[in-house]
Amino acid sequence: MDNRYVTGFAPEPELATAGWARRRPVSWAVHAEEFGRRGLPGEEPVDPLAEVIAAISPPDAAAMTAARERQDRMTKPRGSLGVLEEVSVRLAGLASSCPAPLPEPACVAIFAADHGVHAQGVSPWPQEVTAQMVANFLAGGAVVNAFAAQAGAEVTVVDVGVAAPLEPVPGLLPRKIANGTADFTSGPAMTRDQATVALTVGIEVARDLVAAGNRCLVTGDMGIANTTASAALICAFTGADPAAATGRGTGIDAATYARKVDVVCRGLARHRAVVPIAPDPAGPASVPDPACPVGPASAADPVGILAAFGGFEHAALAGFILGAAALRVPVILDGVISGAAALAAAALAPDVTAACFAGHRSAEPGHAIALSHLGLRPLVDLGLRLGEGTGALLALPLVQSAARALRDVATFDSAGVAEKL
Amino acid sequence: MDNRYVTGFAPEPELATAGWARRRPVSWAVHAEEFGRRGLPGEEPVDPLAEVIAAISPPDAAAMTAARERQDRMTKPRGSLGVLEEVSVRLAGLASSCPAPLPEPACVAIFAADHGVHAQGVSPWPQEVTAQMVANFLAGGAVVNAFAAQAGAEVTVVDVGVAAPLEPVPGLLPRKIANGTADFTSGPAMTRDQATVALTVGIEVARDLVAAGNRCLVTGDMGIANTTASAALICAFTGADPAAATGRGTGIDAATYARKVDVVCRGLARHRAVVPIAPDPAGPASVPDPACPVGPASAADPVGILAAFGGFEHAALAGFILGAAALRVPVILDGVISGAAALAAAALAPDVTAACFAGHRSAEPGHAIALSHLGLRPLVDLGLRLGEGTGALLALPLVQSAARALRDVATFDSAGVAEKL
Repeated sequence: MDNRYVTGFAPEPELATAGWARRRPVSWAVHAEEFGRRGLPGEEPVDPLAEVIAAISPPDAAAMTAARERQDRMTKPRGSLGVLEEVSVRLAGLASSCPAPLPEPACVAIFAADHGVHAQGVSPWPQEVTAQMVANFLAGGAVVNAFAAQAGAEVTVVDVGVAAPLEPVPGLLPRKIANGTADFTSGPAMTRDQATVALTVGIEVARDLVAAGNRCLVTGDMGIANTTASAALICAFTGADPAAATGRGTGIDAATYARKVDVVCRGLARHRAVVPIAPDPAGPASVPDPACPVGPASAADPVGILAAFGGFEHAALAGFILGAAALRVPVILDGVISGAAALAAAALAPDVTAACFAGHRSAEPGHAIALSHLGLRPLVDLGLRLGEGTGALLALPLVQSAARALRDVATFDSAGVAEKL
Repeated sequence: MDNRYVTGFAPEPELATAGWARRRPVSWAVHAEEFGRRGLPGEEPVDPLAEVIAAISPPDAAAMTAARERQDRMTKPRGSLGVLEEVSVRLAGLASSCPAPLPEPACVAIFAADHGVHAQGVSPWPQEVTAQMVANFLAGGAVVNAFAAQAGAEVTVVDVGVAAPLEPVPGLLPRKIANGTADFTSGPAMTRDQATVALTVGIEVARDLVAAGNRCLVTGDMGIANTTASAALICAFTGADPAAATGRGTGIDAATYARKVDVVCRGLARHRAVVPIAPDPAGPASVPDPACPVGPASAADPVGILAAFGGFEHAALAGFILGAAALRVPVILDGVISGAAALAAAALAPDVTAACFAGHRSAEPGHAIALSHLGLRPLVDLGLRLGEGTGALLALPLVQSAARALRDVATFDSAGVAEKL
């Protein structure tokens, strides 16, 4: 073929054929003058959260059926890939395509923030460690950096509320909403507006990372005392007993642990207005402690619950998960912090779970409660309790392997392999 | 510095400094005229199996201590990497170096062979599937190929006893010992000489893959009916009850399962000479079935047990594991077939387990018995029951991540991060 001259035009732009450019709402390319009130000149302002929630739909049943049928024709005994068969089916349903595209490249976004509840003595680590670890991530010295390098994933750090000024450096997105949240035992951790801004930051980070070419997002977090906020969120969203949902975080003694449970109980009591006693369809995750004044929760006001207890990283992670689901890109959840954030996301848009893959089961007891509520099965179970995105990064090659098997493995017919008699 | 002229010589050859060329016995570079009787002209013949067993030594305690201390100084809460901390410690002990070198590149060796016991009707798959799947591996169409591509591992297929002539193609090592083993219910599956040759093939494959630059070996296998042989080997090496050690393999009905257990029982009864009733220091893995004539086993004659029940792939895998351990290179074990082979390797050289990492826990019940006997904890637990090396390949990035964290993560001092109060 003579390709020195243009002899015709393709029916579609090449980028559309290659799948690089998906159609997205034009508002996603519009820069905000003011959070939540953006819009084209002369048009109605757009609410990114409402837009994302409206874009989230159930998985594609036809693609899932096609994936199950392909799994049964692949050159292996039926069902012999165990849990990974269902992972490949879920990826196909999310992408509306069998096989689904490989979930790579991937990027982990580490949302970092501080917590007012740290003042209650719930952690043995000084609050300064949040900012110090952010510097460590940016210098490439943390475990998340090592695991990301091994998995071939990029690392982005998002300051949504670290209680210290951070120097602008490459790899750090400055999105600070405040210098940490307020103490949730004496009032809401953040205002409703702050929670909405944090959700929008997460949505925008997901959008930008997918626009940059990523086909898999990974949740990460940093924030001293954030397992306390996570425990409160998990109790509020699932109705779990604080003693069952609260763990030892990075490692605390019995006195600190008792204080931590008490802090969660007092927080839940303080915010009964947003955590009303209402029947939970899934039932309480554990037997409630009569001494602790909380009943099974309602998720009637997820933003209110996020504002009451959450860290800025929880709200941003909830937005990040919603943003990924709206773009039908898989998001691998790390541990208890992203589990709590996913509960908020699922309360806002129940179909968000179709995009979520539970990377691992952390040692924090509240994490198992959150995963069971979300109906997600963890892929890795190695007793990690570090956070940062480390557990999710370990699961990334497992999710990628599941997708690659569905795409690449020959069928009995195509390979000339005899079937079971 | 003026580097136009040679002004001096390094104290060591550059390859030695870079760690590429480890010192190995000269016999390892000598090509065999006759298996097991090789040697330099005028010198004593060398027995590769004895040489490898003599080279296997316990892990380096000082390197393990150094690794544990480094884990405690890394910028993360102590113990927060869970099981992966111990993986990094074991890698350091094996390499006599803290941190250990990264276990990459990696190669999976798939040892393929057929089994005389197939004639007993223990599998619903025709025996031809072994050769057909070997062709599928070589064409890149099997799950092991997809997982290896995802993990960045090479694939080598070794024919140690497929019951069909295989065309020579790149990627296939022709090491056929016979056209399948004999039926172990009527006599030994192989002769003692055949078992020794198969062990030597495995040792040589490990040696050649490490000489080619691999720093991690991965076990793979293919052989219709090889879960039956594995169950018999596991009973013989651990004293387990055949009903507890025998599983449903690739998926069999109740009648076939009952026949499979009976075949294992009859095999064990037939070969009591090599499986004498002797107390097992670890105790029986389950309550023995009084109807099944087998007692706790002795591992006094591991080669005899391999010859009695094993497939050629079991014996070759045992050699492969011993060869890796002798070179102090980690070997990631796949499922029940390599678990049975590792029991034989450990009976020959107990310290071999220092080089072994259990990739996953397969759905076959005998696998858990073998791992518990070996003292190995599986890294992945996703209900796989495929073989080929698939479960081990899923664990490869986990082992690599553990090594990379130990090597790359900053310490509290070096990163300026405050420690727990």
